[in-house]
Amino acid sequence: MSAEIICVGTELLLGSILNSNAQFLATQLASMGISHYYQTVVGDNPSRIKQVVEVAISRTEDAAKQAQLLIFTGGLGPTPDDLTHETLADFFGVKLIEHPEIVADITNKYAQRDRLMTPSNRKQALLPQGAEVLPNESGTAPGVIWEPRPGLIIFTFPGVPSEMRQMWRHCIPYLQSRGFGRELIYSRTLKFWGIAESALAEKVAPFFDLSNPTVAPYASLGEVKLRLSALATSIAQAEEIVQPVAEQLKLIAGKHYFGADDDTLASVVGQLLLGLGQTLSVAESCTGGGLGQMLTTVPGSSQYFLGGVISYDNRVKTSLLKVDSQDLAAKGAVSATVAEQMALGVKNLLGTTWGLSITGIAGPDGGSDNKPVGLVYIGLAGENSQVRSFEFRFGATKDRALIRHLSLCTALNCLRYQLLEA
Amino acid sequence: MSAEIICVGTELLLGSILNSNAQFLATQLASMGISHYYQTVVGDNPSRIKQVVEVAISRTEDAAKQAQLLIFTGGLGPTPDDLTHETLADFFGVKLIEHPEIVADITNKYAQRDRLMTPSNRKQALLPQGAEVLPNESGTAPGVIWEPRPGLIIFTFPGVPSEMRQMWRHCIPYLQSRGFGRELIYSRTLKFWGIAESALAEKVAPFFDLSNPTVAPYASLGEVKLRLSALATSIAQAEEIVQPVAEQLKLIAGKHYFGADDDTLASVVGQLLLGLGQTLSVAESCTGGGLGQMLTTVPGSSQYFLGGVISYDNRVKTSLLKVDSQDLAAKGAVSATVAEQMALGVKNLLGTTWGLSITGIAGPDGGSDNKPVGLVYIGLAGENSQVRSFEFRFGATKDRALIRHLSLCTALNCLRYQLLEA
Repeated sequence: MSAEIICVGTELLLGSILNSNAQFLATQLASMGISHYYQTVVGDNPSRIKQVVEVAISRTEDAAKQAQLLIFTGGLGPTPDDLTHETLADFFGVKLIEHPEIVADITNKYAQRDRLMTPSNRKQALLPQGAEVLPNESGTAPGVIWEPRPGLIIFTFPGVPSEMRQMWRHCIPYLQSRGFGRELIYSRTLKFWGIAESALAEKVAPFFDLSNPTVAPYASLGEVKLRLSALATSIAQAEEIVQPVAEQLKLIAGKHYFGADDDTLASVVGQLLLGLGQTLSVAESCTGGGLGQMLTTVPGSSQYFLGGVISYDNRVKTSLLKVDSQDLAAKGAVSATVAEQMALGVKNLLGTTWGLSITGIAGPDGGSDNKPVGLVYIGLAGENSQVRSFEFRFGATKDRALIRHLSLCTALNCLRYQLLEA
Repeated sequence: MSAEIICVGTELLLGSILNSNAQFLATQLASMGISHYYQTVVGDNPSRIKQVVEVAISRTEDAAKQAQLLIFTGGLGPTPDDLTHETLADFFGVKLIEHPEIVADITNKYAQRDRLMTPSNRKQALLPQGAEVLPNESGTAPGVIWEPRPGLIIFTFPGVPSEMRQMWRHCIPYLQSRGFGRELIYSRTLKFWGIAESALAEKVAPFFDLSNPTVAPYASLGEVKLRLSALATSIAQAEEIVQPVAEQLKLIAGKHYFGADDDTLASVVGQLLLGLGQTLSVAESCTGGGLGQMLTTVPGSSQYFLGGVISYDNRVKTSLLKVDSQDLAAKGAVSATVAEQMALGVKNLLGTTWGLSITGIAGPDGGSDNKPVGLVYIGLAGENSQVRSFEFRFGATKDRALIRHLSLCTALNCLRYQLLEA
């Protein structure tokens, strides 16, 4: 079986809302092993909706033979521009039939809210002849499960995400009764930092030819990912397929690999610190507190993260972090020396195993030929007050938010490398 | 002209990411008055991409006559599954041409980050013959502006949202030079904090019946918005339509209104501090540095934001912020008393006009009957060391990230109210 998701709604074409329904349905189809090659968005317009249906059922590869599933969201409401059921009935040449039990259900739901059902709501009880009711427990617009011709299954859902998600649950047993969802697609995402997508892709290029699991690279905001997807009949079987390939990829990537799926640099650093029984404090200049925030997104981070100093102004660097004012004047706030003194200063001030600092030029102003926007120093003070610093140039064309984000992740990654060696 | 948005990427079909690019492009097309009837998502598969192009250019109503714009996102990266330019060149029967200036640009961007360009990156310099380069300032994958046949315009963008948005700016003058965007939809968004969407909606209900400008309410993560949209032939005319309505709405909302469009609570607080010549420091517990980060998202914030202390651990509260250890033991870290002492402590430590503090229970653990998850205290110390505190209960069912976000915005809003009175 292959599926197509068709989202109906002019509000999607105007960009008023984000199409989260398509994403939800996509994950559901993937988890049931139902292939899905296209998604279409179309406005509340009968002739365009019909054209989209025509295109969907004539997609070359499906025309061949296999069963097809068309999933519609939107256009089931009470207003005149809600036209999905009407248009589908017209397209397949059947009538709309009023379902008395739906009229009763709508009347009842209105009564519960001390309101009277309006005539326009009655429209929602009209479904294409031959279609089965797909009940909507929380809203007033039911959908349908309908096989208008052999081998073609249609589901319709309202556009309201919470209602759609609830109604999807009824579709799962239906699909299983038709033999789908016995095979599942299981995905694991491996995450890497400190290596470019292209460099990692070259190292692992032969893996891209695998068919089960498939391996595909992604990158966003400096983080590189490899997604392994396996087709299997059970989670356990899928894990057996994925595991050995994942292990090989980790081995090739070495220290650049930091975690999988929901792991973040902050959570991984936290786990390493917990394992070593060590603590951390931070001193931040251009990131203004973002490192502390990122570390404390992890519940339970108070076990290893004690706090820190936001030394946005240079006076805070000298007074609280004991940065030498002569060094500050001679080398500038954005320098290896100051990064090191900040890291050592906060480590001493808070009495932690590690002190991690960031000082840099996030832009858009403040750059010079010598010290361009994107120049960032990370300082790291550790046991026996040994201090190191690292210089990064993230590029003067990047925007402030991205430079700050890269600085935060890179700082955590510097610490991660050190902890791995411990 | 009519447009179609075609998003290429298997990750969209797997539901791994939300299609925010389609939404952004939809709003841009709407604002320029360019009709747009369909959006399509297709995987990284040449034959399916070609099929989608075939369908798009044969849509009945366009075949008639009018110029057509196809906007592609995704598939411009360096890996083997990035196939958009290759597939389009093949579809329209032209060659891919290597652009030396792009090779130079990619090499340069890699050099800035102290990395070597890999051979696979060179692929990104291959564009369909006859296509104009659509430069990508922050990333390595350029797009194209291309008219492969008369009346058919193609734009391609990488899938990375930040890069795509930046590149779109180059497309606006191109479209205007072709006569589009003469009638425009102009929107202004008024932003409010400290009032529920339903409460604001009731106060301004009569405005929802206006037709030019239209007024529509939105809410997300505690921020309530009213979007005013005007149809006009020039920005100046649109502003004349929007301005008087905006003024009435601001008057009705009073102090809850904080800014418009790109204004944020952090930028508005910054403007108020700058105007008064005052400075700010922060002391953060459950938000771990997020308040400092939010304040420093604003370029130039160093003029009024000096820094702060992340007192995640109680020892930092007592040692650096001089919170009284007996009070801490008696009242607990999440208490009005501790919030006030933190605010005063950081104000004294950094010598600022204002000290702003947050202490609370962000969850998921750490709540009790008496002090549930979502309980947050904001402390504010001001001139003459006057200190106030504010208690908020954001609700124990909210997740950690949302409670922290609401805490940050609410803290800034508390300060904003005080600054408005100054």
